[in-house]
Amino acid sequence: MAKILRLDMARRTFRWEEAKADYAGLGGRALTSRVIKHEVPATCHPLSAANKLVVAPGILTGTSAANSGRISVGGKSPLTGGIKESNSGGLLSQKLARLGVQAIVVEGKPDTEEFSLVKISKDGVEFFPASEYEGLGNYRTMARLWQRFGKGVGVMSIGQAGEKRLSAASIHFADPHGRPGRAAGRGGLGALMGSKKLKAIVVDDRGASPVALADPEKFKAAARKWAKYLTEHPVSGQALPTYGTAVLINIVNEAGALPTKNFRGGRFEFAEDISGERMVDLIKQRGGKTKEGCHPGCLIQCSQSYHDAKGKYLTSGFEYETIWALGANTLIKHLDDIARLDRLCDDFGLDTIEMGVTLGVMMEGGVIPWGDGPGAIKMLKKVGTNDPWGLILGNGSAFAGQALGVDRVPAVKRQGLPAYDPRAEKGVGLTYATSPMGGDHTAGYGVATNLLKCGGVGDPLKKEGNIELSRNLQIATAAIDSTGLCLFVAFPVLDNADALQCIVDMINARYGTKLTTADVGELGRQVLHDELSFNHDAGFTKAHDRLPEFFKENLKDPHNVTWDFTDAEIDSVLGDL
Amino acid sequence: MAKILRLDMARRTFRWEEAKADYAGLGGRALTSRVIKHEVPATCHPLSAANKLVVAPGILTGTSAANSGRISVGGKSPLTGGIKESNSGGLLSQKLARLGVQAIVVEGKPDTEEFSLVKISKDGVEFFPASEYEGLGNYRTMARLWQRFGKGVGVMSIGQAGEKRLSAASIHFADPHGRPGRAAGRGGLGALMGSKKLKAIVVDDRGASPVALADPEKFKAAARKWAKYLTEHPVSGQALPTYGTAVLINIVNEAGALPTKNFRGGRFEFAEDISGERMVDLIKQRGGKTKEGCHPGCLIQCSQSYHDAKGKYLTSGFEYETIWALGANTLIKHLDDIARLDRLCDDFGLDTIEMGVTLGVMMEGGVIPWGDGPGAIKMLKKVGTNDPWGLILGNGSAFAGQALGVDRVPAVKRQGLPAYDPRAEKGVGLTYATSPMGGDHTAGYGVATNLLKCGGVGDPLKKEGNIELSRNLQIATAAIDSTGLCLFVAFPVLDNADALQCIVDMINARYGTKLTTADVGELGRQVLHDELSFNHDAGFTKAHDRLPEFFKENLKDPHNVTWDFTDAEIDSVLGDL
Repeated sequence: MAKILRLDMARRTFRWEEAKADYAGLGGRALTSRVIKHEVPATCHPLSAANKLVVAPGILTGTSAANSGRISVGGKSPLTGGIKESNSGGLLSQKLARLGVQAIVVEGKPDTEEFSLVKISKDGVEFFPASEYEGLGNYRTMARLWQRFGKGVGVMSIGQAGEKRLSAASIHFADPHGRPGRAAGRGGLGALMGSKKLKAIVVDDRGASPVALADPEKFKAAARKWAKYLTEHPVSGQALPTYGTAVLINIVNEAGALPTKNFRGGRFEFAEDISGERMVDLIKQRGGKTKEGCHPGCLIQCSQSYHDAKGKYLTSGFEYETIWALGANTLIKHLDDIARLDRLCDDFGLDTIEMGVTLGVMMEGGVIPWGDGPGAIKMLKKVGTNDPWGLILGNGSAFAGQALGVDRVPAVKRQGLPAYDPRAEKGVGLTYATSPMGGDHTAGYGVATNLLKCGGVGDPLKKEGNIELSRNLQIATAAIDSTGLCLFVAFPVLDNADALQCIVDMINARYGTKLTTADVGELGRQVLHDELSFNHDAGFTKAHDRLPEFFKENLKDPHNVTWDFTDAEIDSVLGDL
Repeated sequence: MAKILRLDMARRTFRWEEAKADYAGLGGRALTSRVIKHEVPATCHPLSAANKLVVAPGILTGTSAANSGRISVGGKSPLTGGIKESNSGGLLSQKLARLGVQAIVVEGKPDTEEFSLVKISKDGVEFFPASEYEGLGNYRTMARLWQRFGKGVGVMSIGQAGEKRLSAASIHFADPHGRPGRAAGRGGLGALMGSKKLKAIVVDDRGASPVALADPEKFKAAARKWAKYLTEHPVSGQALPTYGTAVLINIVNEAGALPTKNFRGGRFEFAEDISGERMVDLIKQRGGKTKEGCHPGCLIQCSQSYHDAKGKYLTSGFEYETIWALGANTLIKHLDDIARLDRLCDDFGLDTIEMGVTLGVMMEGGVIPWGDGPGAIKMLKKVGTNDPWGLILGNGSAFAGQALGVDRVPAVKRQGLPAYDPRAEKGVGLTYATSPMGGDHTAGYGVATNLLKCGGVGDPLKKEGNIELSRNLQIATAAIDSTGLCLFVAFPVLDNADALQCIVDMINARYGTKLTTADVGELGRQVLHDELSFNHDAGFTKAHDRLPEFFKENLKDPHNVTWDFTDAEIDSVLGDL
C-alpha cells in the first residue's frame, strides 16, 4: 500500500501517512488537486506557509505500461492564484512509485534563508543543507547531484528563478541523461518550491521492489496491446518520433493558426526555418540525436539532443510550443537563438511558453526590438543576475504587461497563451478560456481533432462542435493526467475506442479493480470539480473565463476570423460540472 | 442645465451631451461610478480603449458652501482591476461647475505615442499637442501651464508615472498656489489618464456665470449655519487647522494603531519626530505656512507649506497617511526625508500611501535597509528614469511583492493598506476588507468614531459595533463624496444631526428639490450598489474581501490583538446592499 510522505519544511522533518479515504486510489493530477482542494486555504498567498507543493506519480506509473512515467506537481499557483497541476516526464516518477510513495506533500516554510535538499530512498528520507547548490542552474545542480548520489537517480530541482520565487519559475526533472530538459513548466510551481526553501529532491530507488500487480498476466496482455496502439498510430508512432513536437510548426502555420508578433497574424514568414523538419536536418548535420524518451518505457521518443553549430550539446526537450513562443511569437527566426533561449529557460528554471509570451510583451512595450534574438538572449540572461529586468521578465506576461503599461497581453488568468491562435483554433481557445489551469493547451487539446483530425473532423475556424470538443477533452485529459500516461496517448485513444478500454484493463489488472471506461470519465469530472471548486473559493468567477479583448479583432493573416463565442457559449463548456 | 463633455482621445474631438436620465442630478462619486458601471465593460483591460476616465464635480461644487470644492475621478482601476473613485481638492472642480460641466468623460485612445492637452473655457474646448510637457513632473507642468494659460487656471495633470502607465500613478490638481500637492491619489487613475495620452486638462472659468441657485436666500442661510458647524467642531475647527492631518501621528501612535515596519507593531519609537506638532515647529522655524486650503472656500485649512532647512519651499499637502507610509511604516524617522519623498511623489505623480507601503515591501525583500531615508529617496527617483526598479516600485505593493517573492504584502484587492493597523482599529479594518475601492480608509473612516470619538464611542480593539460602524460610514461617505464636500465634514456631521440636515437644505436650495436626510442615505446605498455590481461583473467575490493572512498573527506592540472577524462577519458589512 503506497503512502503519502509529508515534508515539514519549517522543522525539516518528515512523516509517512497512510492515504486517508479521500485520497485512496488516486494518483497524478487527481491526487494533487484533491490534496490542494482539501488542505490549502483557497485565499492564502501562494508563497505563504499555508500553501503546499504536492508531487504525485500517476496510478499506472512504475508499471511496464508504455509511456506511464509522468509526474504531476500541484499547488496554488503563484502565477494564476488558482489551482495548478503541471506534469512532466523525467526519471523521478517511476522511482517514487517503486518506493511506494503515492505523493510527496511539501508543507510549511522555514524562517531561515538557507535552502535544503531532500533524499528519498528505500533506507528512508534525509534532509541535507543545500547551500552548495544555491545560485546554481538546473544543469549544474543535476550534474552535481548525480555525482554525489549516483548516476541515474531521479532529481527534481529549481534553478535561480525558483530560488527567487519568480512567478514563471518551473520545476525540472532529470531525464535519462541527467539533463533538465523536462519540466513541470506552467504556473510558477518553481516559485512555490523556492518559497519552501527546497532546492531539490533526489529519489534513489535502488533496492526497491517492482510495483505489485493484482493480475500480472492480464496486465502483460493489456500492456502489449497498449504498446501496439501507440506505435501504430501515425501521430504517436511516426510524426512525433521523427520530428518531435516541432512537427507542428509547419502544420499549424499551414492551418493559419501559428500566432506571430504577439498574436497579430496566424502565419510566420520564416516558419520553415524553425520547423521540425529543419530541426531534424540540423541535428543530423551536427551529430545530435533526433529521438529520445523522457523516461524509460517511452515509445514515442519525441525528445532529442540539439547541438550547436560546433557540434556541442545545446538543449533537449525542444518543443513545438517552446519554438513557437520564443520564435514565431517574437519574430525570432534563427533556430539556434531559440535553442539558446530554451537552454537558458531549462537552466534558470523558467516556463518556456511564459518566457516567449513575456518577451513578446516586452517587444510590444519597446524594450527589445521585434525579432531580436541576441537582444532576447541578453534579456533572459538577466534572470540569472540581480538585474531588475530579470524580475520583470521572470514574473511572466501579465506582470511584464503591467510593468510596461502594455494592454495587449495574451493571457488568461494571468497565464500566457500557448502556440495556437484561439481565433483560428477555436477548440483550444475554449480550453484557454475555461480551464481551471488558466491559458493552457494541454488541458483540452482541441488541436488534436481540429487540425490533426484525431477522433473526428472538427473545423477550427467555426464555432460548431468546439464547445463539446473542449469539454470532452478537458474531462478526458483530467483523467489521463491522473494515470501517469503521457498526454500524447490521446491520439490513438481519440481514434480507437479499444485503446481507452486497454488503459482501463491495465488499471484493473494493476489494482484488482473493476473499473469501466465510464468510471474514467467520472474520474475526469471529479478532478475538474475539485479544481473548479478550489478556484471558486479562491475568488474566480466566469469573468475570469474570458480571452483578452483584442481577440475580438480580426486575425490579420490568413483567415478572416475573430473570437466570436458569446459569454453564454463559453460558460457552457464546463457549465454543468 | 449642466452638460457632460465627452473627449474622444482617438480622434481628438469632443462633444457636449445633455445628461441622460440615468445621470440626471448626480455629481461626484455618484456620477463617476454610475458612468463606469453603465459604460465600461467590466472585464476590459484597465489600459484598453474601452476604459473611461470620468471627472465630476460634486453637486454642491461651485456654490459658496464651505469645503464643497472637491472633485471625483473615476475609472476601472489599473491597480485593483475594480471600480475606482478617488477624490481631490484643488482649483479645477469649482471652475468646471461654474462652466456648467457636470462631468468630463475621457474615452478611447489614440494610436500615436504623442500626448495631448485639453483646455476648457467659456469659449469652448481645445486640443493641443503636449509634446513640450512630456517627461515633465507635475511641478514644472503646472508652472508652465499657468505661465501659458494664466495664473490661477485649474489644472489636472500627470507626471512621469502616469505617462508610463504605472499602476500607482495619481492625477494631480493645482492648488491655489499652482502646486501639485493635491491628488486623486489612489488606484492608479494616473495610469488610465496616461493610457489616453492625456497629459493635462486646463480649466479657465473666466467669464463664467456664478452657479445658479433655486432659492438664494435659503441657500445663504444654510451655508452660514454650515460654516459654523465646521468651525465650531474641535476636529475640523481646531485640530486640523492647527496641525494638519499629521495631528494624528501622536494620537494613533498613542492608541497603538500606528503600523510600523510593514505592519509588525502599532507604535513607532520615533513618532514624536514625525508628528504634526514637530512638523508645525519646523514650519514655523523655517518660515513656511501652517494653514492653507486646497480650494477657495475651505474653512479647515489642513494643508501647509513645508520648507527645507534652508527655508526653501519643499512640499505641501503633507498628510498624516503620507508621513505614516513613508515614515513609521518604513522606519524612516527624519521628517525632511519624508517630505522629500512626498515631493517626489507629487512631482512624478504617485500615490504616497502606495509608495510607502511598496517601499516597506522592498525593505521586506532586502532591496533597501529598514529606515534608510536616503536609500528610499534614491529608489523613488528611479521612477523618473528608465531604471526598471522604477517600474517595480511605481506599480505598487502587490506588484513589488510579486517581483521580490515577498508574501507579507499589506494590501486588499492589490491596493496597499493605509495608516491604521486593522487589528487595533477594527472599524477601519472592515472598510479595508469590504470597500469596493480596495484597501482604503477614506471609504468608511472608522477612526473618526473609534479613536476620535465622533458620533459615539467605539472600541477600536473589539469587534462589537464595528460591523455597523463600517457599513454606516461607507454608505454616508459614498453620499458625501457625491456632494463635492470634503470628507472632513464628517466630524461635525457625526456629532450633530443638524449638520446633515444642513447639507440637505443646501442641496434643496441649490436645485429646488425636496430631498430628506433619508434620501442622502439612499444615494449612498445606490452608489455602493453601482460599485459592488461593477466589481461583481469584473470578477470580484467575497474571497477578495479578506485581509492578508498575516493579520491573524498578534500585533506585536502594544496591544495583544489579532484580526479576528469571521468571514461571515466580514461579509455582513455590505451584505444587504
